[in-house]
Amino acid sequence: MSGKFWFREEQYSIGTTVQVEALLEKFTSEYQEIEIYQTVHFGRMMVLDGCIMFTERDEFIYHEMLVHPAARCHPSPKRVLIIGGGDGGTAREVLRYPSVESVDLIEIDPSVVEISKRYFPALSSAFSDPRLHLRHLDGAQFVAEAENRYDLIFIDSTDPVGPAKSLTGEEFFQNCRRALTDGGILALQSESPFLYGDTLRSNFQKLSKLFENTALYSAPVISYPTGWWCFIWASDSHNPHRALPPLPFESQLYYYNSEVHSASFALPNFLREMLSREPAKEDSPDVS
Amino acid sequence: MSGKFWFREEQYSIGTTVQVEALLEKFTSEYQEIEIYQTVHFGRMMVLDGCIMFTERDEFIYHEMLVHPAARCHPSPKRVLIIGGGDGGTAREVLRYPSVESVDLIEIDPSVVEISKRYFPALSSAFSDPRLHLRHLDGAQFVAEAENRYDLIFIDSTDPVGPAKSLTGEEFFQNCRRALTDGGILALQSESPFLYGDTLRSNFQKLSKLFENTALYSAPVISYPTGWWCFIWASDSHNPHRALPPLPFESQLYYYNSEVHSASFALPNFLREMLSREPAKEDSPDVS
Repeated sequence: MSGKFWFREEQYSIGTTVQVEALLEKFTSEYQEIEIYQTVHFGRMMVLDGCIMFTERDEFIYHEMLVHPAARCHPSPKRVLIIGGGDGGTAREVLRYPSVESVDLIEIDPSVVEISKRYFPALSSAFSDPRLHLRHLDGAQFVAEAENRYDLIFIDSTDPVGPAKSLTGEEFFQNCRRALTDGGILALQSESPFLYGDTLRSNFQKLSKLFENTALYSAPVISYPTGWWCFIWASDSHNPHRALPPLPFESQLYYYNSEVHSASFALPNFLREMLSREPAKEDSPDVS
Repeated sequence: MSGKFWFREEQYSIGTTVQVEALLEKFTSEYQEIEIYQTVHFGRMMVLDGCIMFTERDEFIYHEMLVHPAARCHPSPKRVLIIGGGDGGTAREVLRYPSVESVDLIEIDPSVVEISKRYFPALSSAFSDPRLHLRHLDGAQFVAEAENRYDLIFIDSTDPVGPAKSLTGEEFFQNCRRALTDGGILALQSESPFLYGDTLRSNFQKLSKLFENTALYSAPVISYPTGWWCFIWASDSHNPHRALPPLPFESQLYYYNSEVHSASFALPNFLREMLSREPAKEDSPDVS
């Protein structure tokens, strides 16, 4: 297929439409439908089950902002766990830290890794780093069996339906906490406040009960529905507002810097109010 | 027309698609095509020349963030000018300041005001405030004839094509500066860095040459293409980073607060770099 046309993410009641010039790949793996497009102005684009994961032009924002606000606050992260993230972008950011000795990347779907190696070398370059250990397992199950092992855990999941459904429950978060070392930090992508407000609040409240310090932060993730995305930061020992140690490679990043770090934790009034509201009766996404 | 369908903004190579249930109004005014939709989850939506202006559910972010970062920094704004903004949302935010005695709203197209009065009472309520003076004139021409008159000027324009083309030139900005009182502040919407990067840089550089203090800030404007929008703040006397005076109605706002004020001026690395780059040879939008 070639000639200009539009890819439209119309899974929820608002989404992104991107002009594309070719569908490069489309197949169904054991877990999901995978599509790769050549867009007109945003480079190549990965789509899973109809949802845009990233474009080459905007992926730096999501990956830098999932990783650095947490990694930056740990004095010397050595062992890191990534759940999901089979494209390699999150691992690429983690591997910038010279203190990191080992990264376990638990991606359930081998096809995501294969396709990233074929089409997204700037992300999948992470897989050639000897510190990276890739396993195709269920993330929730893997984390249930880990204890006191990781300085940093990143949940780089798709939306809380399909393969990622098991990555938002109370038990899963408890297991993440147990898998962290003393001084460990957890960060997870946590949806758009305009789409999954109930899930966002529910995750935030669950994590606030489990961890000493829990904070919400956000960033523009321009290819996702509403273009605005939240993340949750949680730790028993650290907090994201303390004085930040120097980051030697800060000037090499495209989005994150020390000012952006602090700024990303500033919450608009409606989000403050949303997080403090009583828990919803049902723990289902609102997908509005 | 009724039954669920999609409104797709496909003016550039990326845009927003919104599920709608009815087209409530569609006509062509002297200046542009105007459409009003009932969306499924975002209330009513105004579309001008195929571009989403706002939905009822998200308009608070754009309007609060155009107005308060500037208005908050003026010790006692009395006379205010709004160029564009015929929907009334910007005026609504300006009129929250008790010190404001008079607001000149220069909207070239009377139909925008009429349609807002009919469909968007939460915005057009501003028009019943006796301090508001509405004129249907060309904004660039109006500003050319004003001198030392306004404490605050807001440029609430559509994209720099069509009716808003005259609102980005060097002469227009010079006229804005002359129209400001000593201690006056100018704020303008300045597009998405992923869409109109050249226009953004060009406007920022022009204003930096004219004003003592020029700063870029941004906010998630979720229904606009890429969902992320920039604004420029300019003044000879004030700067946006000084200690902020208390804002009595801060808790009544939905997006803006003091923390958000400071945070919105934090620039990601790629935007810092973009703003300092040499001027583009042509001053045309990149619309990529």
